[in-house]
Amino acid sequence: MRSFAGRDILSLKDFEREEFFRIFQVAKELEPIARDRRNSTMLAEKTLVTAFYQPSTRTRLAHEAAMHRLGGHVTGFSDAKMTRAGDWYQESIKDTVKMLEFYGDVIVMRHFQQGAPMEAAKWASVPIINGGDGWGEHPTQILTDLYTVLTEKGHLDGLKWVAVGDMRMRTMHSLAYALTQFDCPITFVAPPDKDLTPEFKAELKEYCLNFKEAEHVDQCIADADVILVEPVVQPDYTKSRQEAGEHGLTPSNYKITRELLSTKAKSDAILLHSLPRMDEIPSDVDITRWSRYWQEAFNGVVMRMALLALVLGKME
Amino acid sequence: MRSFAGRDILSLKDFEREEFFRIFQVAKELEPIARDRRNSTMLAEKTLVTAFYQPSTRTRLAHEAAMHRLGGHVTGFSDAKMTRAGDWYQESIKDTVKMLEFYGDVIVMRHFQQGAPMEAAKWASVPIINGGDGWGEHPTQILTDLYTVLTEKGHLDGLKWVAVGDMRMRTMHSLAYALTQFDCPITFVAPPDKDLTPEFKAELKEYCLNFKEAEHVDQCIADADVILVEPVVQPDYTKSRQEAGEHGLTPSNYKITRELLSTKAKSDAILLHSLPRMDEIPSDVDITRWSRYWQEAFNGVVMRMALLALVLGKME
Amino acid sequence: MRSFAGRDILSLKDFEREEFFRIFQVAKELEPIARDRRNSTMLAEKTLVTAFYQPSTRTRLAHEAAMHRLGGHVTGFSDAKMTRAGDWYQESIKDTVKMLEFYGDVIVMRHFQQGAPMEAAKWASVPIINGGDGWGEHPTQILTDLYTVLTEKGHLDGLKWVAVGDMRMRTMHSLAYALTQFDCPITFVAPPDKDLTPEFKAELKEYCLNFKEAEHVDQCIADADVILVEPVVQPDYTKSRQEAGEHGLTPSNYKITRELLSTKAKSDAILLHSLPRMDEIPSDVDITRWSRYWQEAFNGVVMRMALLALVLGKME
Repeated sequence: MRSFAGRDILSLKDFEREEFFRIFQVAKELEPIARDRRNSTMLAEKTLVTAFYQPSTRTRLAHEAAMHRLGGHVTGFSDAKMTRAGDWYQESIKDTVKMLEFYGDVIVMRHFQQGAPMEAAKWASVPIINGGDGWGEHPTQILTDLYTVLTEKGHLDGLKWVAVGDMRMRTMHSLAYALTQFDCPITFVAPPDKDLTPEFKAELKEYCLNFKEAEHVDQCIADADVILVEPVVQPDYTKSRQEAGEHGLTPSNYKITRELLSTKAKSDAILLHSLPRMDEIPSDVDITRWSRYWQEAFNGVVMRMALLALVLGKME
Repeated sequence: MRSFAGRDILSLKDFEREEFFRIFQVAKELEPIARDRRNSTMLAEKTLVTAFYQPSTRTRLAHEAAMHRLGGHVTGFSDAKMTRAGDWYQESIKDTVKMLEFYGDVIVMRHFQQGAPMEAAKWASVPIINGGDGWGEHPTQILTDLYTVLTEKGHLDGLKWVAVGDMRMRTMHSLAYALTQFDCPITFVAPPDKDLTPEFKAELKEYCLNFKEAEHVDQCIADADVILVEPVVQPDYTKSRQEAGEHGLTPSNYKITRELLSTKAKSDAILLHSLPRMDEIPSDVDITRWSRYWQEAFNGVVMRMALLALVLGKME
Repeated sequence: MRSFAGRDILSLKDFEREEFFRIFQVAKELEPIARDRRNSTMLAEKTLVTAFYQPSTRTRLAHEAAMHRLGGHVTGFSDAKMTRAGDWYQESIKDTVKMLEFYGDVIVMRHFQQGAPMEAAKWASVPIINGGDGWGEHPTQILTDLYTVLTEKGHLDGLKWVAVGDMRMRTMHSLAYALTQFDCPITFVAPPDKDLTPEFKAELKEYCLNFKEAEHVDQCIADADVILVEPVVQPDYTKSRQEAGEHGLTPSNYKITRELLSTKAKSDAILLHSLPRMDEIPSDVDITRWSRYWQEAFNGVVMRMALLALVLGKME
């Protein structure tokens, strides 16, 4: 297994099976710090740089919270407009990174352009963590999801997944790459215009992912052990919220309701959503036994603690 | 007296008299840390989450400064537009708080909607501090003001107050609720269209507040021991600053000038303003013996140190 | 030599020669902390307040990074729009500073108005560091540049400078004032409409600066030991980036190309740029032996460490 010290976390493609398990083990070891709400001093000598060219609440704050739980420092920017890096005559990733690398010891980057964190990693002397790059990948989110499944179900292999959402999104890419390393068949449910691209399907076959596609979530939910949901619709700014609310935003094909869960889902299935949500999971699902999305939020901090400790060489 | 450990600071309504004094005592004990400018390590294991849906300088930074003075960590957001929480299809307070509660150990929230921090407190496992909610309340500001009066005058009971400003504002609500617990008669001076609402007046009578109303500050300033001022006008973006400046913004009824103070005010009265100001207190008042608003700024940090130490259970 | 403890860093005018060398010596002593990437605890008891009324990446983050490297805390704002200090009816610098001085122990301020940090220093009980004031000065940047020259060349006296850019800019003012204290002849190269003003030239003569002016960088580059470059053009928002890129933005008079360097420059000259750049230094210059701008970024952190340690009285 390759060492994590000094390593970039850019993509889950070509991540080795043993590497996933090593990360999960470190997360398990560090989890009591977050659960007991007592910041440690493990990373007191280190500084995290947040380079967010797109707004983010969860990804940015989960990394910051993780750094604080480990006693470290945080600097950076949360909006490209607040920096000259976001100017019209935009500074190159190289120029920006050749500066940021001196402001801290690890950089988490979200960028609207696919591949930007990879470009950053080419130039930086410190590890780059991909916090979401355009349509590309979102590895730390999917590591959080897998860790949540592992802690909730006790194992990963043998579980059947259903993923609902816009299949062009970065989380779906990271999820598909990750599941190639586990014995986890998956069914993708997406609107026809937001489906897996032919190129991506070809790639997944090459990587031996056991996957199917379905048009309606009720065609496949009965078998699922894990149901991962993302929005299929985007905010429509031409309508008022109330207007949209009346008619509903999300077609029933891609919606997980209490009724659907109680009539069709396995009684021990678990429901994941990285949030924020539109109306694809109504709030009355929150207190059913299936929902695990609040745990995901907690695990989001634990996972980032593990990644920071690993790439900064404080855990082997 | 109820314990402060784990408690939300949402409103000064139904705050007990002894609770006020306990907070002031803790503030007094912690004050040397701020005065000596030496951050301690009391809250080194804790993280404050700032959730500011509206811009703020003083409230946000005073909480952050207080946390730093106690050696703690800070994360969060200072503008809803910078987070997906401020999207058109706005995330519910519940969904947001079910995430934020894992990013730290206490949350200070400012929100444009009255009641938002109360909704947050329903769902959070960590204490919520109300940093100002719409027209609702602003408890930490008024606690700062009362503490300033206590430290400047040596006591609270028996002091006569005049409050000038827009009576629909949150600070006025918190002030009125707080004074119900002290022997402090108060006269409210406001423009007719920004007066106490009939409902609020009825409530204050029920709570046995000894209050009057006046149309012009010079009708009541002679008796006042404490003069608390807030702006009665809002910036008028249709006029240039200079234009507005020439004619003056604030009618003389609601303006505290050097001349008014020197001819009518008690020689030992004190003048409070939470700032920022328009022109309701001209800057030549700053170096008179009445002004105490710079001390308020200092006390604003001390008060937040006390509240953070109390709700996080580090002071009993 | 005057003590640095409690002192404002507002301008390099009237900075004494020995003071420059003392700062460089402290920078040299603290540099290993940054190079070894291990935050110390020297300033753990202190808080830096960032008051940025204009966006900035490098200046703000270099100060924050420096504070973190010395174990200190950071609070503040990075955009005036996010604070009520930036309102239409703008709060006075006095009112803002009379608040900020209680939120930390040193304030770094960038402001669109020339002289704003000087006004702040009149009222503050804590040191003010000028992070760039309108067309005024940018002392910490030029201290970084001089320190870079000193570390790269081993000495300052006797070196010949060429400065290319918009001579009305604050960095040029600070540079010219600084060089009056060293035996460093300088040639300024600027477009006619962005030249040194007659008033500034008269002042520089009075200060005995040995300077010349040139129209084209190739007229003077052959003699230069240090070439300091700033943009001469500003982003043109009426053109797309590509459009601008095709025709080039910067006239050849003010452009430092690989060809110019290899045919005309001294083989041991060094090339400085505080970045971000437009196209005045094409990226293929980055890996030539002349470029030192990445080192400047590193030294930018070291210099701010030195300044913070000095004004906070932790280094004599």
